[in-house]
Amino acid sequence: MQTTRTTPSRLAKRAHYDADTIHPILDEALFCTVSYVLDGQPMAIPTAFARKGDKLYIHGSVGSHFIRSIEQGNPVCISVMLADGLVLAKSAFHHSVNYRSVVVFASAEKVTDEAERLEALALITDHLIPNRWDDLRPTTDSEMRKTTVLAFSLAEASAKVRTGGPGDDPEDEHLPTWAGVIPLQTVRLTPIPKAGDKDIPLPAYLAS
Amino acid sequence: MQTTRTTPSRLAKRAHYDADTIHPILDEALFCTVSYVLDGQPMAIPTAFARKGDKLYIHGSVGSHFIRSIEQGNPVCISVMLADGLVLAKSAFHHSVNYRSVVVFASAEKVTDEAERLEALALITDHLIPNRWDDLRPTTDSEMRKTTVLAFSLAEASAKVRTGGPGDDPEDEHLPTWAGVIPLQTVRLTPIPKAGDKDIPLPAYLAS
Repeated sequence: MQTTRTTPSRLAKRAHYDADTIHPILDEALFCTVSYVLDGQPMAIPTAFARKGDKLYIHGSVGSHFIRSIEQGNPVCISVMLADGLVLAKSAFHHSVNYRSVVVFASAEKVTDEAERLEALALITDHLIPNRWDDLRPTTDSEMRKTTVLAFSLAEASAKVRTGGPGDDPEDEHLPTWAGVIPLQTVRLTPIPKAGDKDIPLPAYLAS
Repeated sequence: MQTTRTTPSRLAKRAHYDADTIHPILDEALFCTVSYVLDGQPMAIPTAFARKGDKLYIHGSVGSHFIRSIEQGNPVCISVMLADGLVLAKSAFHHSVNYRSVVVFASAEKVTDEAERLEALALITDHLIPNRWDDLRPTTDSEMRKTTVLAFSLAEASAKVRTGGPGDDPEDEHLPTWAGVIPLQTVRLTPIPKAGDKDIPLPAYLAS
């Protein structure tokens, strides 16, 4: 949703407010950064998360200072950034980055419904490792008691996207300097089994 | 430096305050997230940066709302996170992430010395693309006038690092569930030349 604080001061053409742009970025990003304010001081914590519909979930220990600082519903800013490429121009000035980023302004709602809590934990697990949850033993009551789940509305979310090659000044176009894009990608390497585990085959959902 | 706000409430063994841990994380990370407070609201912007000694530099347009919001020296929190691997345990509860993160509490100092401004821009460019700066035409006075460079002290920086395999509960060790680590890596793919450029060979510093 476009509001005063989701409207950028510059390069407004890069801003997007539609779920079709915002949701895939959130779904592809592995981690978000949660920024909040403590006694006037900005704080930031990178953490795992998941999205379902117009909600974003995070979790943490009930004893975590971070979780306790935001669970009462004070304002947070949740940001993710996917770096897609380094954009090399003919001049230093026009160097840029191809990226897809999302910023969410919201306040935590502490999830108390046990079914929603469990679903959120499954979503967070499967967001990082698709199909993992169903391969795991059930969560215990003790584990659930030690875990806080927070939900955030995506109503005030916005995305910024840059794609394409460099935009050079006309007078630089003739320069023999190499220009273009170096694509960046996050890859998953071959899984390394736990020390001591023997004869446990790698499941198909981890092999792909 | 260890201060009240750089001391984590949990897992204190993961915290580090020495330059030998902090500097390599900052040097390897391509982007940081700058969190700040505007009228009580937390805000966060991902941006490029560079480190020299105990200083971190960022830059931006003199007209940027973000830059103008922090250049007066109000407190910021600068965070970076390198995600090294997904840690798969026998239980959902003990799933974790191998990561190296740094959080810096600081306030912007606006760099006014022209030589330091130029050096900071070179450092930021070469941080993303090593050896790029020397291959570029000199920056113009007009470009420099349009650019703000901010410096931040790393005096109050801390790192958190997790490495290794999953830590399972003893009663879960026998489970036949695959456990271990899926390493994550950010890779640079083959550079894509700018449309229209012909016969400009890829420089050696971009080929490696």
